[in-house]
Amino acid sequence: MLMIMPLKYAISGRLLARLESSCWMSCAQHARHPRQPTLPTHLGGIRLYSHHASNNPKTSRSWASLASRGAIAVGFAAGSLQLLSDDSYENGDGKVEAKIRTFRLAEVKQHDGSSKNPWVINGISVYDITDWVEAHPGGEVILTAAGGSLEPYWDIFTIHKRPDVYEILEQYKIGEIDDAELKDGRVPQDAIVDPFQNDPERDARLVTLTPCPRNAETPEGGLREFITPNELFYVRNHFWVPAVDGEEHKVIIELTDGSERTYTVKELKQRFQRHKLMTTLQCAGNRRKSMTDGVGPTNGLQWKAGAISTAEWEGVKLVDVLADAGLDIEKLPPDAQHVHFSAMETYGASIPIRKAIDPWGDVLLAFDMNGAELPRDHGYPVRVIVPGTVAARSVKWLSQITISEDESPTQWQRRDYKSFCPSDVKNPDWQRARSIQEMPVTSAITHVEPTRGGRGEVESFCAEGYAYSGGGREIIRVDVSVDGGRTWHEAELLDDEAKVSGSRAWCWKRWRYKGQVPDDGKTVSEAVLVVKATDEAYNAQPQTYESIFNTRGNLATAWDRAKVS
Amino acid sequence: MLMIMPLKYAISGRLLARLESSCWMSCAQHARHPRQPTLPTHLGGIRLYSHHASNNPKTSRSWASLASRGAIAVGFAAGSLQLLSDDSYENGDGKVEAKIRTFRLAEVKQHDGSSKNPWVINGISVYDITDWVEAHPGGEVILTAAGGSLEPYWDIFTIHKRPDVYEILEQYKIGEIDDAELKDGRVPQDAIVDPFQNDPERDARLVTLTPCPRNAETPEGGLREFITPNELFYVRNHFWVPAVDGEEHKVIIELTDGSERTYTVKELKQRFQRHKLMTTLQCAGNRRKSMTDGVGPTNGLQWKAGAISTAEWEGVKLVDVLADAGLDIEKLPPDAQHVHFSAMETYGASIPIRKAIDPWGDVLLAFDMNGAELPRDHGYPVRVIVPGTVAARSVKWLSQITISEDESPTQWQRRDYKSFCPSDVKNPDWQRARSIQEMPVTSAITHVEPTRGGRGEVESFCAEGYAYSGGGREIIRVDVSVDGGRTWHEAELLDDEAKVSGSRAWCWKRWRYKGQVPDDGKTVSEAVLVVKATDEAYNAQPQTYESIFNTRGNLATAWDRAKVS
Repeated sequence: MLMIMPLKYAISGRLLARLESSCWMSCAQHARHPRQPTLPTHLGGIRLYSHHASNNPKTSRSWASLASRGAIAVGFAAGSLQLLSDDSYENGDGKVEAKIRTFRLAEVKQHDGSSKNPWVINGISVYDITDWVEAHPGGEVILTAAGGSLEPYWDIFTIHKRPDVYEILEQYKIGEIDDAELKDGRVPQDAIVDPFQNDPERDARLVTLTPCPRNAETPEGGLREFITPNELFYVRNHFWVPAVDGEEHKVIIELTDGSERTYTVKELKQRFQRHKLMTTLQCAGNRRKSMTDGVGPTNGLQWKAGAISTAEWEGVKLVDVLADAGLDIEKLPPDAQHVHFSAMETYGASIPIRKAIDPWGDVLLAFDMNGAELPRDHGYPVRVIVPGTVAARSVKWLSQITISEDESPTQWQRRDYKSFCPSDVKNPDWQRARSIQEMPVTSAITHVEPTRGGRGEVESFCAEGYAYSGGGREIIRVDVSVDGGRTWHEAELLDDEAKVSGSRAWCWKRWRYKGQVPDDGKTVSEAVLVVKATDEAYNAQPQTYESIFNTRGNLATAWDRAKVS
Repeated sequence: MLMIMPLKYAISGRLLARLESSCWMSCAQHARHPRQPTLPTHLGGIRLYSHHASNNPKTSRSWASLASRGAIAVGFAAGSLQLLSDDSYENGDGKVEAKIRTFRLAEVKQHDGSSKNPWVINGISVYDITDWVEAHPGGEVILTAAGGSLEPYWDIFTIHKRPDVYEILEQYKIGEIDDAELKDGRVPQDAIVDPFQNDPERDARLVTLTPCPRNAETPEGGLREFITPNELFYVRNHFWVPAVDGEEHKVIIELTDGSERTYTVKELKQRFQRHKLMTTLQCAGNRRKSMTDGVGPTNGLQWKAGAISTAEWEGVKLVDVLADAGLDIEKLPPDAQHVHFSAMETYGASIPIRKAIDPWGDVLLAFDMNGAELPRDHGYPVRVIVPGTVAARSVKWLSQITISEDESPTQWQRRDYKSFCPSDVKNPDWQRARSIQEMPVTSAITHVEPTRGGRGEVESFCAEGYAYSGGGREIIRVDVSVDGGRTWHEAELLDDEAKVSGSRAWCWKRWRYKGQVPDDGKTVSEAVLVVKATDEAYNAQPQTYESIFNTRGNLATAWDRAKVS
């Protein structure tokens, strides 16, 4: 008998929780009845779990693909249920032993991810997660913790840090760490592996919001350039930066008929025509802090205006690879509706298939960024680039592409990157709300340089910034106001077009405005600049945040404001 | 020596002037120096005029195509300049005769559009416009006036009604109407042909803004239906409704290499696969009155929320016809950037070629509307349907399609259907502003039904309306507020999807909201409903009109408001 627990739905983190929301009800519902098997014994029972994960025939391979889509399944043999009681446990070898057996750290370490019987530590307790792992052979993420402490991982996947989940864990307990190993009654810090220990070094100029996982804004200097230097490109990581095989790293492509094709990065580079593409990437939470400041608390990284950058990417067209893998582009199967991208570290998201095959959609599998190999923070050795679409879909460290009838089942597709009616603060309808794909028009002031007169008072100023709209909709006008939006002046749009490659207007536009401070005396030192942009569909930014406020703080696109001095 | 005057740029009308703006500087500039030839004698000189009109080799055919694109050229032989003076004139036969010759109406009538020497009347004066017409063999519009009075036409093309243009006209004067023909010193009304005399009868329920040309809104009842009945579909005519040949009506297709292909409507129907497409059409000026009421005067038809309707159209795909006519769709010539549509009555506009060939663009040449032959007001026998794009590009009474490097040169492309920085009220930069194509997100309240309590006070209400966005971007949410926008409630989106055909979300969404009037006493009778919509790119409507105000009153998309009672 198997119990399947949609841990991946549940994946979050202490950091994520602070930043990008956390709870996921279906997990809690499963967790509430940890020992009551709810699914049939055959693997097909995963359907209930994987309702949104796959529409393919279930094969042993499907486990791996579920996992690589971001699914972690928890399973155990129903038979073992009979043997367990409060004062006995079954270890991985099937032996029933007395409780409170003690282990040395070295012994636990032997039960690492490569062991037949992986163990983990939580607090000073030791757990045999063999049955758990058995049911999800692709669950690399949980195996990462094996041989050591769960805690650093559960600090990321914070959904586990609740009484009902700990209750489940207790049922796997096989003993505790020997007193001799403890310091001040705890497992010493150096025995606990830091999942972020292999993260790359970063440029000190980046404005760091969280170090682990690394989330950092492009600093003002970077935002003033049309092309953001690689080392100043904003970083949005949901987890650690995965270790990689480089050219030998594999990307699996799975079609709706269950057929698969695997390419190494080397093959992708050699077999397909390479393309260059210049595009802006923007986080759904860019400018979130201004929404928070304007209305109230939002649940996510408090980005200022630097969660956006522009680069030239080089890679191969996704559509070419999909066609090579056997997808009939001219006549798509009716169940080919979405393209899922799964990352090595567990992140996953999807885009509508039409974007993927649109001849002017320009979706790339990219290897290079601004003429250099992809930096590790930006997806080395291969990432997806989906221009015109929220950057959350441009999945880094790509490991699998899956064609599916449904959207990706991950929380980043089904939950985090959505927006709601402004009044739905307490109970937003996650299911009904649309996943963010193309982004709405926005703009920001990134630099204001006042010119002072003889007595030190501000007389004039030069303001700079960017404007951007999703879907390749070109910015056609940027208006600036020095009187809070009563009167407007058209800003100069910088002539960056000549540099741009791609089928649509995928890049931000930089603007500049030189103006006078209003001479009404009162406002000289308090003059507030306001900026708003218009895209080619004449869509406009909302004036304030009240009307687009959402608990996630996504799409903070109201007029931007800055003081002159 | 030829002088080319871009009359078509100048075309407007008394009604249009009131409604859709009028002056056109380049025309005024030409008109200021009527007898100073500014162009070389060879026909290639038209390049200056036709800079935006054509990039094709100039042939005699090009005149016709210019005209059919909406261009009217004024030309005269330089030699005749020498013969003209204040007391002599050259008639069409080259004879110099004494001034103030008089004519009978019957004689003028013989010089109609079919005559070798067309004449027109203005006031009681008679003018020989032979040289004028000679230079523009395709100028059917001016020939329509020949044999009778110019006045009804200049009432439409009001740009002519200015001293400098009358000055030009005077130079063609050959005499006056015989006193015996005059009544009260004027040409009798029944001798003046009404260009609108053949306009069709209309449904009395339409909300008429102007009878000639006919502009009328869909009434409230029509707006509550998902599919607007043909007789209630809003009417937006720039001129009269042209007379047509039905199945024998011809559509010319001209490619960038100058090659042409002509199809009768019958051939179009027989040769190409037919498609059905459901789409909403919306005027750029829909809801203009609310912008005027909100901010101040705007130059255009003062539409309420009824310049929008939805129908199912049936026709053939434009891309199929273009391919048949010889356009290489797979590898477009580099100068194939825009597709111009010219109408029989003189109207013209263009769309970017990518929209025309987009496999999901769904651009049709339509013959039928809601299962019936196109009504004359809606383009019989053939019109263009450009879903997701401002209705001004869905040209009716189609006579020519021209592939070009540039946008259509007509005022409706280069001038009328644009928007500007809110402060550019007096001197908007017509050239720099982008032609409206895809439209921004909008919504409207079309019906409010209050429920009254025992004492007659409003207790609750049911509101209905529509929401729409351009580019096929689906409406994903409609929010309603009963407190002026402080708090919001999600409206129900009606389940009309099952009825929809087409590659994208081309149709409006109907919404409904049942709510309570706030119980703060003061607001019961004054409660103001507010509605705003969000499209799939999460674009939002602007809160008020100040920030999108433009002198043309285009794209009036601010939140819509209505009183409950």
